[in-house]
Amino acid sequence: MFSINTYTKRRHRLKSKLNTGIALFMGNVDASMNYTNNTYHFRQDSTFLYFFGLDYPGLAGLIDFESGEEILFGDDFTIDDIIWMGPQPTLKQNAAKAGISQTHPFAKLKDIIGKALLQGRKIHFTPPYRGKNIIVLSELLNILPAQVKNQASLPLINACIALRSIKEPCEIEEMERHMQTAYRMHTTAMKMAQPGITEQEITGIVEGISMSGGGMVSFPVICSVRGETLHNHYHGNTLKLGDLLLLDAGSESPLHYATDHTRTSPVGGMFTQKQKEIYQIVFDANNKALAASRPGITYKEVHLLAARTIASGLKDLGLMRGDVDEAVAAGAHALFMPHGLGHMIGLDVHDMEDYGDTLVGYDEETPRSTQFGLAALRLGRRLEPNFVVTNEPGIYFIPALIDQWKAKGKHTAYINYDKLESYKTFGGIRLEDDILITETGNRILGERIPINPEDVEHMVKSGA
Amino acid sequence: MFSINTYTKRRHRLKSKLNTGIALFMGNVDASMNYTNNTYHFRQDSTFLYFFGLDYPGLAGLIDFESGEEILFGDDFTIDDIIWMGPQPTLKQNAAKAGISQTHPFAKLKDIIGKALLQGRKIHFTPPYRGKNIIVLSELLNILPAQVKNQASLPLINACIALRSIKEPCEIEEMERHMQTAYRMHTTAMKMAQPGITEQEITGIVEGISMSGGGMVSFPVICSVRGETLHNHYHGNTLKLGDLLLLDAGSESPLHYATDHTRTSPVGGMFTQKQKEIYQIVFDANNKALAASRPGITYKEVHLLAARTIASGLKDLGLMRGDVDEAVAAGAHALFMPHGLGHMIGLDVHDMEDYGDTLVGYDEETPRSTQFGLAALRLGRRLEPNFVVTNEPGIYFIPALIDQWKAKGKHTAYINYDKLESYKTFGGIRLEDDILITETGNRILGERIPINPEDVEHMVKSGA
Ligand SMILES: [Mn+2]
Ligand SMILES: [Mn+2]
Repeated sequence: MFSINTYTKRRHRLKSKLNTGIALFMGNVDASMNYTNNTYHFRQDSTFLYFFGLDYPGLAGLIDFESGEEILFGDDFTIDDIIWMGPQPTLKQNAAKAGISQTHPFAKLKDIIGKALLQGRKIHFTPPYRGKNIIVLSELLNILPAQVKNQASLPLINACIALRSIKEPCEIEEMERHMQTAYRMHTTAMKMAQPGITEQEITGIVEGISMSGGGMVSFPVICSVRGETLHNHYHGNTLKLGDLLLLDAGSESPLHYATDHTRTSPVGGMFTQKQKEIYQIVFDANNKALAASRPGITYKEVHLLAARTIASGLKDLGLMRGDVDEAVAAGAHALFMPHGLGHMIGLDVHDMEDYGDTLVGYDEETPRSTQFGLAALRLGRRLEPNFVVTNEPGIYFIPALIDQWKAKGKHTAYINYDKLESYKTFGGIRLEDDILITETGNRILGERIPINPEDVEHMVKSGA
Repeated sequence: MFSINTYTKRRHRLKSKLNTGIALFMGNVDASMNYTNNTYHFRQDSTFLYFFGLDYPGLAGLIDFESGEEILFGDDFTIDDIIWMGPQPTLKQNAAKAGISQTHPFAKLKDIIGKALLQGRKIHFTPPYRGKNIIVLSELLNILPAQVKNQASLPLINACIALRSIKEPCEIEEMERHMQTAYRMHTTAMKMAQPGITEQEITGIVEGISMSGGGMVSFPVICSVRGETLHNHYHGNTLKLGDLLLLDAGSESPLHYATDHTRTSPVGGMFTQKQKEIYQIVFDANNKALAASRPGITYKEVHLLAARTIASGLKDLGLMRGDVDEAVAAGAHALFMPHGLGHMIGLDVHDMEDYGDTLVGYDEETPRSTQFGLAALRLGRRLEPNFVVTNEPGIYFIPALIDQWKAKGKHTAYINYDKLESYKTFGGIRLEDDILITETGNRILGERIPINPEDVEHMVKSGA
């Protein structure tokens, strides 16, 4: 259970990692859509949420690593605000929920940071990603907006990564509880995967289930019969028999922990023979990666195991050839799976990506590769108990990439470009689960969303 | 029908209104939620949409009022982008859709604006509301972010208001077509208004229907059994018998024109006697305002007509007293309806609010009032054919406001505070339609969402 203690303990642990300077945690403000007062759903900054837990706009937190002081900055609502918005907690009440007694009006931040700068003290902050916070930081620090990001604090970033990588029992509980919303989103979409419906209609319902379940989608929904387009946010197609519907969608829990799953369903409920063969390879890769994930192994090794499973399966189909280990070492399989096996997940769907994904997913022991495909792997380092990671192998037939590689004569020893021609309209399949690394191995969080090809077919048919 | 001509004509009209300087139209970029690459649904800037119609991030438009030149700035996708995102139109292709032949890479904007500034030329732009565009403008204009908004161009703003206030046939057609999504959102919510369901569940489904209908919600959904809280975005309550559910929700059409409707439904399907009485007064106010709206009348007059209808109805119930005209002139009714009757609606739900709502809704002939209640009216000026406006009277019993006024002894000649005590838990009722001002009067856009109290009861019961 989350409590005041959750947040005081986290700040206490952070203080044990840094000894000098001041950390400034900028909460988010409302993000404007088309004019100032017309805003998107409020999303608090994840670092601020982690250390303060306060899900309101217009706040900032400060920790002085030398004096030990903790201060919350914000402004109380006026009586007029309360008339329009209903009763609102005061700044003091909010601060108390985070275990903080010292509060100041937001404008006071300028004085306090200004004084600290005059004293030559270091101001630690994580890299901002929203324009309005970049502007506030540029004004507080007296530097140009373009200089702000470069001055983010590596020691603070590293300390945050160390803490947030290991999920606490209350975090795992929150994440697992919310998996039922993910289950509902994906099984509902499977049932809707019938000829004649549009991607947009399914996307809308999936987003609605997320909202009904307590929070907004954790990232822009990918709902497409063109699953080979990895970052596809076009939803204008109408489903037809023979299509594969790829849905990569997640939801934020009430406390803003993310889910992230992908399923690929045959429109109308029957895989073709060709689809079944490719699906089975991806399913095998997912299961092998799952079986291998445990403390002590690097996720890079798990990624390469999934890659070998895919290369081996494609060799059996005659699409690849030669020695599987050599093909994977050369990166030939990346024509079919150009992305990584997975990433950390937590308060962010790509957890802590605002800190920089190489800092989050790699370390001195396991540096990031520059090879096409492997370079896209977000998490490579050694797994530890209470990491939560995604396991998402896929096989795609990307016409533009196939044409590019073929023209360059890339990896002809391992790829049968002739046979590939007949797969160029196939599309793509990805299968993604969220898994918790335990002391001895791992487990899937929540009830596993139907993934056996027969179960998926059955689920789609049940919606017809 | 929208066509290339739609946009070239609009720019042509704009050029006829301004003779000197350069207008810079900043399109929006993707808005980050919790890290740079995790973004909200893209929403283009409305002014950019109006003059260029291009619904992609990362663009800017320029019109030179002296040379007549029109330029589109942006960057083409790389082959790597296309591998991940699928085939994408080129900048040239996009420019052609807007009837523009001259294009430049985005970075070129800096040179061109820099040169114009050196020549002492005026750069016209509308007030930015997103941090990232404020930063870009501050860099282009070589001023601090805090100075950018003040340098927005009043002549450009006024020209845009003159054009956008009068909706073109293609705009009216687009708006009317999308009213069926609004109808589905509201009637679905009515059917869901049963005891035991949460506000959050209904909100989720309503958002989902909007997305399925082609676009995101046009503003944050208000879905509440505490309708007296005017800006209520808390959705944690569970509906129970006796509650009134107030839903104020709208959807963006595929071309980003907004709908905006409010209905108030009795949970379970039966208004109480007390609810029926208040509902009937609001319904009368809505119908009288509708009947009065036509070219030539000011919307301030229509607002005051609705106010008198409300004061008169509340007088019949013994909640107000004294002379109705005098009470409304004094602003006593604003205890019950502290907001305005309506606003323009178009590409924004509060159309053009980024320009400043007093500039949009008032003029020299009809200045904005400072009286509590009337001051909140966003549109006061004389109506003209092809304005689209909302008609949204309401009655609310706001405990904090009642207590404040009572303590101050405000308007005791007109308000029966004793009788009011028994209404302090009543809540609030608002009824809102979107209406088009025609040559001779007006018409409601789309099929009217059920609003007769009996029709609403029937709709709710049909969902039980
Ligand atoms: Mn993922
Ligand atoms: Mn409205």
